[in-house]
Amino acid sequence: MLINDLPRFEILDEAAMNELERGWRRIVSDLGIEFLHPEALKYFEDAGQQVEGELVRFDPDWILEQVAKAPSEFDLQARNPEKTIHVGGKHMAFSAVYGCPFVREGLERRDATYDDFQNLVKLAQAFPQLDSPGGTICEPNDKPLDSRHLDMVYALLTLSDKPFMGSVTSGPNAADTIAMAEMVFGRESLEQTPAIISLINVNSPLRYDDRMLSALIEYAKAGQATIVTPFLLMGAMSPVSIPATLAQQVGEALAGIALVQTIRPGCPVVFGSFLSNTDMQSGSPSFGTPESAVGLFCTGQIARHYALPFRGGGALTSSQVVDAQAGYESMMSLWPTFLAGTNFVMHSAGWLESALVSCYEKFVVDVEMLRMLHEVFKPLVIDEEALAYSAHQEVGPGGHFLGAVHTLERFRECFYRPLVSSTENYERWNRLGGRDAATRATEIWKKTLEEYETPPIEPDLEVELKAYVDRRRTELGD
Amino acid sequence: MLINDLPRFEILDEAAMNELERGWRRIVSDLGIEFLHPEALKYFEDAGQQVEGELVRFDPDWILEQVAKAPSEFDLQARNPEKTIHVGGKHMAFSAVYGCPFVREGLERRDATYDDFQNLVKLAQAFPQLDSPGGTICEPNDKPLDSRHLDMVYALLTLSDKPFMGSVTSGPNAADTIAMAEMVFGRESLEQTPAIISLINVNSPLRYDDRMLSALIEYAKAGQATIVTPFLLMGAMSPVSIPATLAQQVGEALAGIALVQTIRPGCPVVFGSFLSNTDMQSGSPSFGTPESAVGLFCTGQIARHYALPFRGGGALTSSQVVDAQAGYESMMSLWPTFLAGTNFVMHSAGWLESALVSCYEKFVVDVEMLRMLHEVFKPLVIDEEALAYSAHQEVGPGGHFLGAVHTLERFRECFYRPLVSSTENYERWNRLGGRDAATRATEIWKKTLEEYETPPIEPDLEVELKAYVDRRRTELGD
Repeated sequence: MLINDLPRFEILDEAAMNELERGWRRIVSDLGIEFLHPEALKYFEDAGQQVEGELVRFDPDWILEQVAKAPSEFDLQARNPEKTIHVGGKHMAFSAVYGCPFVREGLERRDATYDDFQNLVKLAQAFPQLDSPGGTICEPNDKPLDSRHLDMVYALLTLSDKPFMGSVTSGPNAADTIAMAEMVFGRESLEQTPAIISLINVNSPLRYDDRMLSALIEYAKAGQATIVTPFLLMGAMSPVSIPATLAQQVGEALAGIALVQTIRPGCPVVFGSFLSNTDMQSGSPSFGTPESAVGLFCTGQIARHYALPFRGGGALTSSQVVDAQAGYESMMSLWPTFLAGTNFVMHSAGWLESALVSCYEKFVVDVEMLRMLHEVFKPLVIDEEALAYSAHQEVGPGGHFLGAVHTLERFRECFYRPLVSSTENYERWNRLGGRDAATRATEIWKKTLEEYETPPIEPDLEVELKAYVDRRRTELGD
Repeated sequence: MLINDLPRFEILDEAAMNELERGWRRIVSDLGIEFLHPEALKYFEDAGQQVEGELVRFDPDWILEQVAKAPSEFDLQARNPEKTIHVGGKHMAFSAVYGCPFVREGLERRDATYDDFQNLVKLAQAFPQLDSPGGTICEPNDKPLDSRHLDMVYALLTLSDKPFMGSVTSGPNAADTIAMAEMVFGRESLEQTPAIISLINVNSPLRYDDRMLSALIEYAKAGQATIVTPFLLMGAMSPVSIPATLAQQVGEALAGIALVQTIRPGCPVVFGSFLSNTDMQSGSPSFGTPESAVGLFCTGQIARHYALPFRGGGALTSSQVVDAQAGYESMMSLWPTFLAGTNFVMHSAGWLESALVSCYEKFVVDVEMLRMLHEVFKPLVIDEEALAYSAHQEVGPGGHFLGAVHTLERFRECFYRPLVSSTENYERWNRLGGRDAATRATEIWKKTLEEYETPPIEPDLEVELKAYVDRRRTELGD
C-alpha cells in the first residue's frame, strides 16, 4: 500500500482551527444530536450526557475524552496476511466504489446484478492499486433483499483476499458479517485485530438512524472498525458554507466516535468525511467540485488534530458517461485526496454518475489515475546517481539521450507506464480505430476479468461459508 | 488575475537543493553550453566567461551574480490597463495554448488557418480566466511563412486587449513585434514597463540556437520580458532522471537569464520550464505524466530559491481527442501548476494531442478546469458569519437546508457554477440528447464567439498597425 511521505497540504491556521472548535462545541452542546436507538441513548445517559427523548446534548470535553481512547492507527486484517493494511499515519488505503444501484458497461446502463458484483470484486482483487474491494461495490438487485448481504460478504471473502467492508443495513446483518469473518479469521484473531471495516453514515443533519446505529453497536462490541461519516451535501444536509459544514462534520463524527469508544474503549474507528455540495440550479448532488476539494484539505487537518485516521475523497464525478468531465472531476477529487494524506479512500475506482452507477470502464480509468498519483506521492531521491552526470558527459550539447548508455540501462523502468492512456501519434491512433480512453478501457477490464485468478481458499472454509449463507437465507425467509 | 494565497507544495529538502546546485554548477562549468550566435558569444567573452568556438564554459558564481539583477516580480502592460498583469510573487497568469500546427473542431482535425487563429484569440479574450491569449495560439498556415508573424501580432493587438506574446522566429520578427507594440504603448512607456513577453526555448541539451538567441537579444535590448525555457522531454533532451533533468534545467535556464542580464541589467525575465518525459515504448512525448508533476513542484521551489518568477505547467495531455484521458491528464498537470504557484502558465487552454492540435472544445473544457481551480486556490475565511450557526438553529436535527433563510439568501453565489460540467440526472440528460462534455463544449465556444465583442481601439491606431503589416509584408517579399 501507499505510504505518502510527501508533505500534507494544510490551509487552516490556528485561528481558523479555533473557530471550528468553537463551532462544533456549540452544535453538540446547545443543539444536540439525535440518536434513534435506545441502546445508544442508554450509553450516553449512563455516561452523564443530557438525553431528552432521542436528542442528546453533549459535554464537548466528554466527547474529546472518549475520542482520545481511539487508536490513531490500526491494522486491518486481510484473508491473505500479505494484504493486511494499516489504517492511519502516512498510510493510504484505496477501496472501490460503494453503494451503486446501477452499472454501466460500455454504452449500456442497467440495474446492477450479482454477476456485476462478482465481476467488480474480481477487478478490485486484480488491480494492486486497490487495497480493498470495499463492500457494496454495486447493489445485487437480482438477489433477495433481506439476504443479499450474505451473498455480498460471501463474494467479498471468496473472490478477494483483501480486507473488506461489512454490511450496515441492520444490526443482525452486521452480526452475519462478523459470524462469517469469524469463520475465516477465528474469533480470537478477530478480537485482537479487526478484519472488517464498515461505513456508518450519519443521517445528517444531526441525526443517527436506527439501522446504522444498530450496525455500529454490533461492530463496536466485536472490536471491528467503523468509518463514522457525516453525509454532507452542502445546501441540503448542511449550510451553504464550508466552515459551517466542517463544524457540523466534526460534531457529528466525534459524537459517533465517542459512542464507539463508550461501547468499547480503544475500538478502531475512522473519522469519515463525505462532503460535497448541491448544484443549486438543478438541486442535484455535485461531485468533484472545488468546494469538496477545500473540504478535504480541511478534513485531513482536522482529523490529524484529533489524532484520528480519516476517510474522504475518491474518484468522484457527476458525469453520466466516461467523458472528459468524468476524467477531470475525478482528478479534481483525487488530487486533494492524496494531498490531504487520506488514510482510507472509498470510491477510488468505478464511481460514475454521482454514485448511482458502478461503471466497468470508469473502474479502469480510475485505476490509471491511482497508478499515476501513487507515482507522484513517493519521495524523490536526489543524489549523485540520480544526477546522472555520466549521461550528460556522454551526450553533450545538442545531442540526444535516447541512445545514451544511462538511458539504455533504464528505459524499461525509468518512467510511469500507462494502463489505458495513449501517446500514439494521430496517424497510428486513427489507423488502429481512433478509440477514445473509454473504448480502450473496455478491452482492459475484459482482459483483466479473463486473466483473473481466484485467490486460494481452504475448500472446507468455502463450504462452511456457503452453508452459513444458505442457512441464514432460509432463516430470513428468502 | 489569481493571487494564490494558499501554501506552496514543496518536496525538496536542503540536502536535495544542495545536490541540484552541485549538479548544475558542474554542467555549466565543465561541460558548458553552446550559443549559436556571435553576439551572444561576444557578451559572454567580454564578461570573462570561457568561450571556445560556440561553447561557453561558465563561472557559476558569475551566472548567479547576473541572475540576481533580474527582478523577482514585474508588471506586464496590457492595451487595456485594467488587464495589465503582474508576473511573480503570489500572482498566477494564464495564457492559451501555443505553437500548434493543427486545429480540432468537433470531429474534424485539419491544418490551422488564420481564421482559427483569430477565433482562438477571441476565445482567450472572452474568458476572464485567461490573462493573455499567449502568442502563436495556432499556426496560421494559410498566411505566407515569412510575414505571418505580422498577422499574428496584429490579431493579438486588435482582437484582444490583454498582454500578448511576441514573435521569436527571428531577430527581425522580434523587432517587428516591438515596433508594433511601440505604436500601441509608446516607446517610453514600453521601455519603462514591458508589454511583450516572449518564449525563448533552449534547444536542449545545452544549446541555444541562432533564431532564439537573435530574438532574445532583440527583446532584452528593448527591455521586453522573455521566458527562458529549457525544452526537456526526459529520455530525448535530458537523461531519464528527474534530478538530472532539473540540474540541466537550472543550468540552461540560468545561463540564458544571465545573458539577458548582461545585455540589459534588470530586464524582466522568467525562469521557464517545459519538462515532461518520452514514452519509452512509443518514443512519443508524453504529457500530464507523474514525472512532469514532480518536476513542476521542484521547479517552483528552485525558481523561488533564485528569486525568479517562473513559468511551467498548463492543461497538457497526449490524448488525441477530448475524452477522459484529456480530462484527467490535463488535471494531472493543472493541479501541480497551481500547487507550485506557477507565475506564468502557458498552454492553459486549448492544448490537445501533445500540442500538435489547438482544439476548440478542449479550450472550453480547460477553462472549466481553470475556473474550478481558481475557486480552490483562494483563502477560506472561517469566522462567526461563515459558521452560519443560525442556519443550524433554524434547521435542527433531521431537517433540510434547501429552504433555510441562510441558504435562500446565498443560493445564487454560494457555490461554484460550472460552465460545461453537467449534474443533470440521467433521465433528463438522456432526454436532452445524452451529450458528453466535448459535445456540450462545442455549443459553448460557438456561443462565446457569437457573443464576442471586439475590445475598443483607436481607429487611427488600427490603421497604423495595418499599414505596418502591409508595408513589412511587401518588404519581406510575401
